Amino acid sequence: MTTKKAVILVSGGLDSTTCLALAKEEGYELFALSVHYGQKHAAELNAAKRVCEEFGVKEHKLVSVDIGSIGSSSLTDPRMQVPEKPVEGIPSTYVPARNTMLLSFALGWAEVLNAEAIYVGVNAVDYSGYPDCRPEYIDAFQKMANLATKAGIHGTGPQIKTPLISLTKAEILQAGMKLGVDYSKTVTCYQATDEGLACGLCDACRLRNQGFRDAGLPDVTRYREL
Amino acid sequence: MTTKKAVILVSGGLDSTTCLALAKEEGYELFALSVHYGQKHAAELNAAKRVCEEFGVKEHKLVSVDIGSIGSSSLTDPRMQVPEKPVEGIPSTYVPARNTMLLSFALGWAEVLNAEAIYVGVNAVDYSGYPDCRPEYIDAFQKMANLATKAGIHGTGPQIKTPLISLTKAEILQAGMKLGVDYSKTVTCYQATDEGLACGLCDACRLRNQGFRDAGLPDVTRYREL
Repeated sequence: MTTKKAVILVSGGLDSTTCLALAKEEGYELFALSVHYGQKHAAELNAAKRVCEEFGVKEHKLVSVDIGSIGSSSLTDPRMQVPEKPVEGIPSTYVPARNTMLLSFALGWAEVLNAEAIYVGVNAVDYSGYPDCRPEYIDAFQKMANLATKAGIHGTGPQIKTPLISLTKAEILQAGMKLGVDYSKTVTCYQATDEGLACGLCDACRLRNQGFRDAGLPDVTRYREL
Repeated sequence: MTTKKAVILVSGGLDSTTCLALAKEEGYELFALSVHYGQKHAAELNAAKRVCEEFGVKEHKLVSVDIGSIGSSSLTDPRMQVPEKPVEGIPSTYVPARNTMLLSFALGWAEVLNAEAIYVGVNAVDYSGYPDCRPEYIDAFQKMANLATKAGIHGTGPQIKTPLISLTKAEILQAGMKLGVDYSKTVTCYQATDEGLACGLCDACRLRNQGFRDAGLPDVTRYREL
């Protein structure tokens, strides 16, 4: 019997760690891909290493790209401030074409591995208004991916799996807890300290905390002293 | 009058340099993007710098990404040999999902610049059997790009322009010569020396030389001594 393989985009945050748990539950051999793109919250990547070890991934690959040099996001530009209050519209934390780039790397590796699936933890419910988290975007990426690779000569490609896309943060947490995810090891904060301590103020922290509350679960996030 | 902007993917080879000339002819302000992805033929990038200077680009951005670490192409893997004879099917020089990654970077930068167009020198005639050079692939990328960015909230995005897609190598050369391209400054060879001297043996060299011959033009390529 050959093992089916999946590439999972793992940032070390709440959503991608839940994806890792779901892919394991589905019986895939796990190939985790973390991308360092100049984000300030590099503490996420340490978290990514921890959760990958915990889930016994077959391989954890780290790809570096200086898309931060393209600029224009408060996640990557040191001159810009991560907003600490809710904003109207698309916030400054949006990284131009980020998910397209991340999924492109995953597509390349999936082709090399002959992997059947790519997991990405995008979420269109509690999301921050990012255009590249919407189902219609994912559908369009899938169609493109079906033509982009060697298998694409025959119109096929790896399946882009987005198991969280229509779940609330509370539902994501509940799904992960059932599978034994230890969320204290994940880092979601946009401006976490190097030790992975969260600010409790940014968009990502607010959505995460609300998720724990909505799920009726204790918030296990490690916050920095304020 | 606002100037219309275009991002042009510039490798320093024959095709992308011709794209640069065509974008200039169309009246775009030129923003050139070169990507170093671990390819052995880094001499291309020196050529890219030269042609960008020559065409007076507004900005030339170099992005580095270690997709070579994903492996499985003779263009990036030092353990693999670039083929020096024609092969059946998709050759080992194919880099998994390469054009998807390159276009993703261009998409991100186009969004930051508010550029109207992205030029990419893909070619489906004299091409080497790469799946991501076909018109149906480009169409699918365009549809995805129309949903991927802030403008994608309204279903729009930059136009992906592929002016060379249905031209023969000879036609590309003729179009470029009309616009004054000096092809001796471009480097196409998959295994060029650091000085940009071509091998004369690989797929890329063969197609290029055939192009000059078909166009009835002298081959101005600088070859290494054999």
